[in-house]
Amino acid sequence: MTSPPRDFSRLCIHTMTTKPWAFEEAVRRYAAAGVAGVTVWRSDFADLGPAAAGELVRSHGLSVVSLCRGGFFPADSAGGRARAVDDNLRCIDEAAALGAPHVVLVCGSAPGLALAESRRQIAEGIAAVLPHAAASGVKLAIEPLHPMYAADRSAVSTMSQARAICSQLKSPWLGIAVDVYHTWWDDRLEDEIRRSGSEGTLLAFHISDWRTPVADILEDRGVMGEGCIPIRQIRGWVQEAGFDGFNEVEIFSRRHWASEQARYLEGIKAAYLAHS
Amino acid sequence: MTSPPRDFSRLCIHTMTTKPWAFEEAVRRYAAAGVAGVTVWRSDFADLGPAAAGELVRSHGLSVVSLCRGGFFPADSAGGRARAVDDNLRCIDEAAALGAPHVVLVCGSAPGLALAESRRQIAEGIAAVLPHAAASGVKLAIEPLHPMYAADRSAVSTMSQARAICSQLKSPWLGIAVDVYHTWWDDRLEDEIRRSGSEGTLLAFHISDWRTPVADILEDRGVMGEGCIPIRQIRGWVQEAGFDGFNEVEIFSRRHWASEQARYLEGIKAAYLAHS
Repeated sequence: MTSPPRDFSRLCIHTMTTKPWAFEEAVRRYAAAGVAGVTVWRSDFADLGPAAAGELVRSHGLSVVSLCRGGFFPADSAGGRARAVDDNLRCIDEAAALGAPHVVLVCGSAPGLALAESRRQIAEGIAAVLPHAAASGVKLAIEPLHPMYAADRSAVSTMSQARAICSQLKSPWLGIAVDVYHTWWDDRLEDEIRRSGSEGTLLAFHISDWRTPVADILEDRGVMGEGCIPIRQIRGWVQEAGFDGFNEVEIFSRRHWASEQARYLEGIKAAYLAHS
Repeated sequence: MTSPPRDFSRLCIHTMTTKPWAFEEAVRRYAAAGVAGVTVWRSDFADLGPAAAGELVRSHGLSVVSLCRGGFFPADSAGGRARAVDDNLRCIDEAAALGAPHVVLVCGSAPGLALAESRRQIAEGIAAVLPHAAASGVKLAIEPLHPMYAADRSAVSTMSQARAICSQLKSPWLGIAVDVYHTWWDDRLEDEIRRSGSEGTLLAFHISDWRTPVADILEDRGVMGEGCIPIRQIRGWVQEAGFDGFNEVEIFSRRHWASEQARYLEGIKAAYLAHS
């Protein structure tokens, strides 16, 4: 069995995890708590702009781990698809200004389109922005989303489908973000992580937990240990596959957002050591 | 493209679809509406008993298509697993008395158990009751459930996993129930249906639709046409694979349960012709 994390040197937190905190407060609190990295959401720098947001993070001794999120490529019109490409080009610019090594892609899905067509449009959209990503020194990380989001958020539901797009587009600037919440149910996960590692496409690792029953399809994720995901086992697979990046805590939870956030952050740190 | 159904001769309705109606009323209403078959839930015959329930269905000119539901095999104690086996033996007896050709298995999952261990226990549980199923002339239909139920309702999330159990236990009394709600997202679905057909294990076909966004993880299914599932296409795959049984409408929906059920039933019939 993989060992528990020894310290917080690989702990990253997504700002959305502590949504009640404004960006500046989140960064300050994370730094004070000894968290090592932060994944920034685009809404975080609406006022500051991405460059100043990146400076703020680094001035607190934290690493910018990733920018969330680009994607949402499929649309039922050529105009819609072109707008998505434009938005992703902007997102890449923002990541470069922020100093984020990669952008997480929630690839999108359109309820009126067949899933296979949506995946075709996703590959097409990524292909359209990859040269700009490469020129900007920003990688793109396809995040397979749980099949319960297949209709409206991501037609890429599995690591296999993400790997297929990586294989098709073959670029050192394209890879995969593995999120245990989205992928833990998949009996091919261990094998897919191994393959992705050997192909050099493992870019990010997100952790949270699956509560039973899930009270809300979007905003009822659990802190590590509150659910049934074998997080440590999956982290072991990811590490054995060669991944040595951050463990990113990404929790959307109305229940936790309603709690006192400083205490919640301490709970996350304890859970990180005990259950990831 | 597969043709629309010409009539209601293959239309079956699960009694849970019109939950506000007591069993007798449901049967009477379905018969009056020209529905051909009914899938009975175990709670339906709490008063009547299964034999009288079967008589009631047949006396209205309807076929008993299936009994819902057995399963829930995994447990964290041997005692729990033995109780599950006992309950499934009783369920098989009830199906025989009811005159149902098969029992649908919602296989179960225990949050504390690894999914692979749950699937092992599921195969073990099915193996324990298969001889009684065969002796009773009742088939068992494994229903893969959507991965969003992997933690607590079914560690069997895909057709591939259901086929693996069928291959392991190899019995003419064991097969698969394909439900579009649970399987539509799977890019291997067409291929898996073809394989299942050639292996002779396609026992049942359930239809409903996936609404966006899903308001409730359990009770927000849509009537055919209210969502994004390519129901007719999947029905085509099932038919091409040799399935010639009923198309079973199984909708759990608080929204529709709160509506006038006779009008709802008419809406289901219209949607059946238009969207399945």
